[in-house]
Amino acid sequence: MRVWLNGALVAAAEARVDPADRGLLLGDGVFETLRVAEGRIAHLGRHLARLRGAAAFFAMACPEAATLAGGLEALRAAEALVEGSLRLTLTRGPAPRGVLPPAATRPTVLITAAHGLPAAAGGLRLCIARSTRRNAFSPTARFKTLNYLDGIVARREAQQLGCDDALLRNTEGRLAEATAANLLWRDRDGAWFTPPVGDGALPGIRRAVLVERGLVAERGLDDPAAITSAMLCSSLAVLEVAALGARALAPDAAALARFREASDQS
Amino acid sequence: MRVWLNGALVAAAEARVDPADRGLLLGDGVFETLRVAEGRIAHLGRHLARLRGAAAFFAMACPEAATLAGGLEALRAAEALVEGSLRLTLTRGPAPRGVLPPAATRPTVLITAAHGLPAAAGGLRLCIARSTRRNAFSPTARFKTLNYLDGIVARREAQQLGCDDALLRNTEGRLAEATAANLLWRDRDGAWFTPPVGDGALPGIRRAVLVERGLVAERGLDDPAAITSAMLCSSLAVLEVAALGARALAPDAAALARFREASDQS
Repeated sequence: MRVWLNGALVAAAEARVDPADRGLLLGDGVFETLRVAEGRIAHLGRHLARLRGAAAFFAMACPEAATLAGGLEALRAAEALVEGSLRLTLTRGPAPRGVLPPAATRPTVLITAAHGLPAAAGGLRLCIARSTRRNAFSPTARFKTLNYLDGIVARREAQQLGCDDALLRNTEGRLAEATAANLLWRDRDGAWFTPPVGDGALPGIRRAVLVERGLVAERGLDDPAAITSAMLCSSLAVLEVAALGARALAPDAAALARFREASDQS
Repeated sequence: MRVWLNGALVAAAEARVDPADRGLLLGDGVFETLRVAEGRIAHLGRHLARLRGAAAFFAMACPEAATLAGGLEALRAAEALVEGSLRLTLTRGPAPRGVLPPAATRPTVLITAAHGLPAAAGGLRLCIARSTRRNAFSPTARFKTLNYLDGIVARREAQQLGCDDALLRNTEGRLAEATAANLLWRDRDGAWFTPPVGDGALPGIRRAVLVERGLVAERGLDDPAAITSAMLCSSLAVLEVAALGARALAPDAAALARFREASDQS
């Protein structure tokens, strides 16, 4: 297995991240996870725009989109990745100690590849996280950052309850998203919704495509009892939810197929 | 400059962190910053207990306290560190992709050294952060984790305003702490307080010593106008605050000396 690190393909076992990297020491970085299907990277332009937008917000230097696209395709080809994922991580790079970033740093760009895509035969079992909440007041909620401990805590809670994933409420009590995927939910009238970004939902790329195409609408959600059917969507997959807590949810195979078809490729 | 990495002293330029380390990719780790004065590590036992407590909470494997203490002292001696700081970072270690941690991972332990301690001639200038808030609903607020982007965002905001640091409110609007230090504040009657851990203050070690010795008491704080004098305290220093926004705060040299003397050494 190889990785793409700062411009070169290198054996993963030899790739070296500097222990002074702020991505490691302070979570000072952002990332994208890109779906590869039939050997093609989905929504490449949107992912690179989102990453570069995040870098601009946090005032991190970031290579040009063409450089990043070249690295992604180089690793995809080198690993003969046909169905799987690429992760593109950007950190502010190594720096002396201190919270305030130095004016100029050399960013670290790391691309890794993984074969296979998530599936959920029989549907996902979800719980509502009690261990933590999502902070919609923080800009970190609007970007895909390296600060993932809340998601890890909630996912461990889900596992302990025999569930596959957890939905996180925000600090006001409204449902925001799952630990690494956006929530899609159907109400009693059969319409599909997703929590607003203002409630702490990450502006996911598949989610954005579904909203733009009018297949789901943004709506805040306090009471999980309003959900009649649900799916989780990430860049990698749209997966049906079979149960929320002790309550079974109705499958909606037609909506699942529609959402996948509309958002699987750019 | 050397670092201590997974049991050995190595040249910093050669120390290698695995690109698959969850500390880097997901902020899945915790750390301690320890003060070294006159060649002695302050509050070593408390720091190691806090780190091991955090590791237990997040279910990360962690070396024995004696191993960590040996690493800290080995690096301190190797770098001839007399006045400065040691940073002890523990991550869950390398793992395949995915939010849920594998059952068993080999943790990464990294110790780095820095000469010199923070000072603030003339006192610190603080602002109240508007860019982000602290999430007291999240367990990450109670531990010193690698998820530091909120602090970075607030510190950049402070810098843009010509300030040295920012105080963060929690999502309920109460003051919690600065970006990397606890807040100590004096009210109109001359008593000293610090925001409660329940409001999102990190349970800092120097803060704990001051509370235990009855020098400061925990009290929630909504209105910064209640502050007549203030200091920021971290394991590295107690620093006086000269101004909060446009308002100058009264110095209190006696309290500063008292707090330093009570908490500089264990």
